[in-house]
Formats: sequence, C-alpha cells, structure tokens
Amino acid sequence: MSTFDFGIVGLGVMGRNLLLNIASHKFAAAGLDLDTEKVNSLKEEANPEHSIEATTDVKHFVELIQRPRAIMLLVPAGKPVDSAIQSLLPHLDQGDIIIDGGNTYFTDTDRRFLELSEKGIHFFGMGISGGEKGARLGPSMMPGGDKKAYERLRPIFEAIAAKVDGEPCVEYLGNGSAGNYVKMVHNGIEYGIMQLISEIYDLMKRGYNLDEDTIQKTFEEWNQTDLKSYLIEITGHILKEKDPSGVKLINLISDWAKSKGTGKWTSQNAMDLQVPAPTIDAAVVMRDMSKSKPERIEASAKLIWNQKQTDVNVDEAVKSLKDALFFSILITYAQGLAMLKTASKEYNYELNLETVTKIWRGGCIIRAVVLEDFRKAFTANPELANILLDDNIASKLNESQKGIREIIQFAVQNGIPAAGLMNSLAYFDAYRSENLPTNLIQAQRDYFGAHTYERIDVPGVFHTQWNE
Amino acid sequence: MSTFDFGIVGLGVMGRNLLLNIASHKFAAAGLDLDTEKVNSLKEEANPEHSIEATTDVKHFVELIQRPRAIMLLVPAGKPVDSAIQSLLPHLDQGDIIIDGGNTYFTDTDRRFLELSEKGIHFFGMGISGGEKGARLGPSMMPGGDKKAYERLRPIFEAIAAKVDGEPCVEYLGNGSAGNYVKMVHNGIEYGIMQLISEIYDLMKRGYNLDEDTIQKTFEEWNQTDLKSYLIEITGHILKEKDPSGVKLINLISDWAKSKGTGKWTSQNAMDLQVPAPTIDAAVVMRDMSKSKPERIEASAKLIWNQKQTDVNVDEAVKSLKDALFFSILITYAQGLAMLKTASKEYNYELNLETVTKIWRGGCIIRAVVLEDFRKAFTANPELANILLDDNIASKLNESQKGIREIIQFAVQNGIPAAGLMNSLAYFDAYRSENLPTNLIQAQRDYFGAHTYERIDVPGVFHTQWNE
Repeated sequence: MSTFDFGIVGLGVMGRNLLLNIASHKFAAAGLDLDTEKVNSLKEEANPEHSIEATTDVKHFVELIQRPRAIMLLVPAGKPVDSAIQSLLPHLDQGDIIIDGGNTYFTDTDRRFLELSEKGIHFFGMGISGGEKGARLGPSMMPGGDKKAYERLRPIFEAIAAKVDGEPCVEYLGNGSAGNYVKMVHNGIEYGIMQLISEIYDLMKRGYNLDEDTIQKTFEEWNQTDLKSYLIEITGHILKEKDPSGVKLINLISDWAKSKGTGKWTSQNAMDLQVPAPTIDAAVVMRDMSKSKPERIEASAKLIWNQKQTDVNVDEAVKSLKDALFFSILITYAQGLAMLKTASKEYNYELNLETVTKIWRGGCIIRAVVLEDFRKAFTANPELANILLDDNIASKLNESQKGIREIIQFAVQNGIPAAGLMNSLAYFDAYRSENLPTNLIQAQRDYFGAHTYERIDVPGVFHTQWNE
Repeated sequence: MSTFDFGIVGLGVMGRNLLLNIASHKFAAAGLDLDTEKVNSLKEEANPEHSIEATTDVKHFVELIQRPRAIMLLVPAGKPVDSAIQSLLPHLDQGDIIIDGGNTYFTDTDRRFLELSEKGIHFFGMGISGGEKGARLGPSMMPGGDKKAYERLRPIFEAIAAKVDGEPCVEYLGNGSAGNYVKMVHNGIEYGIMQLISEIYDLMKRGYNLDEDTIQKTFEEWNQTDLKSYLIEITGHILKEKDPSGVKLINLISDWAKSKGTGKWTSQNAMDLQVPAPTIDAAVVMRDMSKSKPERIEASAKLIWNQKQTDVNVDEAVKSLKDALFFSILITYAQGLAMLKTASKEYNYELNLETVTKIWRGGCIIRAVVLEDFRKAFTANPELANILLDDNIASKLNESQKGIREIIQFAVQNGIPAAGLMNSLAYFDAYRSENLPTNLIQAQRDYFGAHTYERIDVPGVFHTQWNE
C-alpha cells in the first residue's frame, strides 16, 4: 500500500494514455474512474512489467499513493472538476498536491487555488496538449501556479513530456492560472490554424478545381517546407484516408463542426483584454456558421454569384496558396502571443514567452518548425511587443504577403468564403497602418453621444458642438 | 408635494435631456443627482412654464413623485445602478416602479428584477437610443420585462418617443431583460456600421485619393439614396466641420477609439449563442487595434507593401464604394437580427422582430430607411430565420455584391485594411455555401483528439483509427 508515485482521476482518452505514459517511464501510477469498464480496460491494456493499478473506489485510490500525494485530474472542465476535488478531499492530507490537467477556464483555477490552499492542499493547473497519441508518447505540458509543488513533480513530467533536441516540452510558466491560460490560447491558435487549412482546402477544391490526389499530395509536400507542422502533417494523412466503400473518407464527413469552447473563450478573453485576435474570432464564427446547414441550403439557392476567375495558372496558384497559408498561420500565432503578453501583465503571470514558444515546439497540436523562429525572436528580445516586429518574422511576412493578397482576391472574385485568411491580412494591414480611420469613429461618438475625443495636436479631451 | 409624474436619477447628458423632453410634453418631472452643479444647471435651463424640479436629496426627490411612483435610472451600467437602487429603496413603497434606462448588461437586469420583486417593487429595463439630441427631441426606446408596469407608463413614453409615420418608436418588446438585450444588439450593429463607414472613408482617402470635399459631398449625396440613415447623415456633417484654425476638424482628431463595451458584449454574447456576428467582431477588434499606436508606428516602417492599383475610374469606384457600404450594412443588421432570433428562444424573450425593426426606424442611432424593408420582411414572415432569406433583401444583396467584391479586391491590392467589409462578404459567401470545408475540421478533431464526427450518408457518431 501507499507505494504509487502518481494518481490520475479520469481514465478517458487523455487520462488513460497519460497514465500508461507515466507507467512506461517506471513510475508507479494509479487510476480512478467511476466507470468500471474504463478501469478494467486500462488493467487489460497495461504492460504487466509496469506498476499500474486502477479502481472505482476513491478511498482505495487515495490510499494507494505515497504521501505527499500527487493526483492529477483529467475530467471535463467545469463542475466535474469541482466534484472530483470534493470526492478526494476527505481522504487527502495536508501537503498533498492536486493538478488540474484539463481545459479549465483560468478563473476557475484561481478560485480553486484559494479554496484548496486554505485546506493545506497544493493545487496547480497544467494545460496538456498532444491529443490521444501525444498523451501516450509525449505531450507538451504547460504548468503554472504553485511552483514548489511543480518542482517536486518535475522529474515525472520531464520524463513523460515530448522532447525537442533533448529538451522536454514542459516547463514552469508562471503564477496563478498561467498554465490553463497558456493552454487556452494554445487552443485558440489551434482553432485559427485549423480554420485556415480548411479554407485553403476549400479554395483548392471549389476554387481551383484541383483533383483529390493533387490536394493530398500538396499538403504532404508542404510538410517538407517551412509549413512543416503537426496540423499540416495530419491533413495530408486525413485526405489519403479511404472509407471501406472506396470513397475518400473526407467526402463523407458532415460539415457541422463541433467545439468544446476553448476557442470561444480565447476570443471572448481577447476582447476583454482589448487585444485583437480576429483570425481566432473567424475560426469560432465559422464553426458556428457550419451549424446552420438548413439555412445555408436555402440561401445557396437565393444568394447567387456566378462570375468566376478561370484564367488560372495552377502551379502559380499552389505557390500562392502556400504563401497565403504560411502568412496567415504566422499572423495567428502573433495574435495568440500578443494575448499572452497582455495577459501576463493583466493577471500577473510573469510569463516568459521564450519558454512558452520553446515548450510548444514539440508534443502539442500547434507544434511547427516555425516555433523555433518565435523562440529565437523572444530570446533576442524578451520584451518584444508582437512577433510581427521581429526582423526575421517581418521579412517572412513581407515575402509571403503577395501570395495571400492574390488568393484573397481570387476567393472574393469566385465567391468562396475566406474569413480566416481575410482577417489575417486585415490584421496585418491595420497593424502596419500608422493612421487608422478610427478618428471618424471618435468624431461620430462625440457627435451623437458627446463622448468627447482626443486630438493629435493638443493634449486633453475635447467636445465639439457639431454644425448640422 | 407628491405631484410629479416621473422621476429621473442621474442628470448627465441622457438624463437631463430626457427630463426636459418629458416636461415639454406637459408631464411634471423631478430629477436627482448628487452633483449640485448638474442640478442647478438643469433648473436654469428649464422652461419656466414646465413643471421641473431637481434636487441632490434622495428623500426629497422620492417625496416629490406621486404614488405609485415611476423613477427612471440613467446612470452608468454596473455598480452605479445598484447604488442608485439601494439609495432609493428605503424611501419607496410597494407598487412603485423603477426603470433602468441605461446600457445595462442584460443578466444584471434579470438579477435586479428578482431582487426587487421580492420587495414589491416593479422593475424593468428599457434601452434608450438617440444620443444627446434624441433624448431631448425623441429617442427610440426598447422596454422589456414587467409589462403591467410598462403599460402604466406607456402614455409618457409614447409622448416623448420619436415618431415615424405617426407611430411612436417605443413598444413593449418582451419578457425579462429583453429591453436591455435588444439595446445591446442595437449598439453592436451601431459598432459595425461605424466601422464600415470608417473603412469606406479610409479607402476614399488613402486608396482612391479623393479630395476632402469630394469625400464629404459623397456622403451627403449618399444620404439621399437607399443608404439614407442617421450615421451616414452625421458623417456628412462631421467631414464638413472646420477647426477654428481652418483645417478640417476630422484631421485633428486622434485615431485612438474609445468604447463603452456594449459592442464587446454583443460579440461575446454572439459567441455564447453560437450565432455568427463577424462584422460586429471586426468593429470591436479594430477599436482595440486603434489603441496600439506606438506599435503601429514601428510596424509601418517594417511591414511594407508598395504595390498599388492605380488605373482607377473614380466615378465607377464611388459607385462600387456605395454598393460595398450598402451591402455590408445589410449584412450587419442581418447578424444582429439573427442574434435576436436565437436570444429570444434561448432567454425566453418572445421577441417580435417586426416590432423591433419598427421602433428602430426612428430616434435611434441605427435608424435608416432600410429598416422599413426589414420590417416588411418580418411582417410577411414573422418566423424568418435570417433577413438574407427575404426575397427583397436577397435581391438587394445580389445586386450590390459586385461592388463589395471590387472594393475588397482593391483594398487587398493596395494594402488598406478592410476588416468590416471583408467579414461582411465572408459571412455572405459562407451563408450561401451549401457545403463548408468544416468537414476537414471535424476530421482533424477526430484524428488528434478522438472527438468523433458525423457522416452525410449514415446517422450516428463515428471515430476512425486514422492511418499515418
């Protein structure tokens, strides 16, 4: 009894695979789930040479783990996390550690930290990315909060994490709910990139009429370029997959996209922080748009655009599509990283963006070779306000902007929606505008609401009695 | 004593003007403000033939009003509303009515309704739009909640409201916080239209190099077309206004836009409801973007696009700009009205969109001749899911889409941001897409997270073991 190094509550896809990962690194790991089936299937799957135990009994589970205990929750965000904590509490001792490894909204972590520290329980949130496979073979992990508690568990987490150039993709990120916050933004970026890839795919198919194999091979080839990344790689795999009927599986999948809400949280929080994140917003919006299938069918017969640009050089188009995708992916990361910058001040996280970009290089869903460029940018200038201001990134954007401009013009001319690409370019063009036309908005606000305005020539606040 | 028909708490721009409006319609109106200066200036401004009283003393204020009392709050949203209610409560009697006339977030209204009904006080929220002048001469008012209480005050509100074809721009809208909710969405639409006008102005100036007078006259002329609306009208006035130095005032106004948050609330709530509102999102984002002036100055030297489309026929461009603006304004209303449709179900408001579009035709900031088209659409089909599906609106969009496509292509080619226009077109093109590429997003989610997907050929939920 009480010999297990680590406990996991929740043996769903993530929990089960993390537990197997931990056990395969010679740590003794215990699992708890109320579902007998999950408990049994874990036991069956376990390598007999590894120390694994699983149970449906909370008391038994807690007793298995050596003190001070380390217990990680991998249950759905929200009430299930509170329920899990409540069921554990009567059996825990002072000094025990609870880690929330789920996609918890960051303010919930702040609340739970306070509640549990009153009881002498160490608590911290740690975002985990990598999906099913990453959890099993090496995820990226984003811990924040109680640093001492994290340090005690560091050997386990570093052992199970993905490695890039020998460096583990886990590192303490910052105070309070920093870990959950960084994971939320990670997911917002993930939403953005997935939306962009889907738009490029749509343009290849509906716009440039490329055949299925060409589209598939193009993504495969792109994964050997500066676009190299997990999401491009799996897109190549997905487009190859065939249904048993022989048809490409992608053509049988419904276009009604689900979401778990982390992208929405990112967009809503960006608005609270007043940090522009329009590509992520567009990704959220387009998932919502996908739900209105019956309306879209009706609209497709009423709202008609028949003009098409047909004089297309396919090879040049594919090159432009690549530039458009690369450009807009850079912009998506820029939006997320700018959020982290502001959030770090606003919520007192003391984030180091070099560390964040370092641990995102491997294991997580948004891993990509370009992360190394971001890391270098923050190494050179830890105070960089936006990666668009880094000379290396700026020159990549300057070089690829021609492509995205061509592709958006083509999309507009052919009536194909490209909200993610458009918002990426609009972000870029607004960000590089010394003067925006928002002076007119200030004037309008003063005109109708006496909301006052500032001037460029004199400091102070002004109101005009406008002539009519 | 106790002879006044109506009381107003908060004698700022809106409160003072509404009180003067009420008094000019022969109702006796009392005002309360803690600021002696505001109280005195109201008294000085008051027409001696009207029954107006103002005080800084809560008890005295309440005693002035005849029972059951009607007291409207016009104080900033949030804590000031709660403070005002708390200061009034000890002096009120059962059956008295409190109306919140501010831009309160709708869930606050729901909470206050419950708290006050326990005390026997009738409470309802009523959004008021029209700015300084509208409040004085006839606003549009959006009441919801306690219908009986509203009915008792209807004669006053109908007297002071704006009139269109003899019909007052005030009508009971629905249950609970419906009034505040409709006003929030009104403001979201207002944000969207203001952003669109500013983009068109920017394109005229930076893109097509039109001179100041031509730009001003163009807005003036557009106000004689189907673009006729309050915001187009005041844009014409604003662009005429000169600073005492002789320069056009618009050129001296800072481009750092302020906001009071109602646009942000609209976008965040649209995401909660899963209703796409990307033009409103873009308006919020671009106000946020305007704040990053120092970064934009730095970026303007690093992120360079020098190519310009110069072979422009100015007359044709102005016609396309008009179509682009008209098209995107229709889309903005569509997004807001679709939100109301969903919110009505979600929050049990029982909104009638014919009524909403009717009372928006006059008095409010987003009043426009096109509101009559929307009203007719909902008269003909109260269950219309989206005004884009109305034949009349659909044909207006089909006719004007060529213009917006040309303008966006020009903006993209010339490096001028046009986020509002782009998001309006992307909304249109996505809404009229029978199939969106979100099937790829579903496949990706299943690939990395085993999140499952639905199929187009068989009902049910599926998971694939994807080949690598």
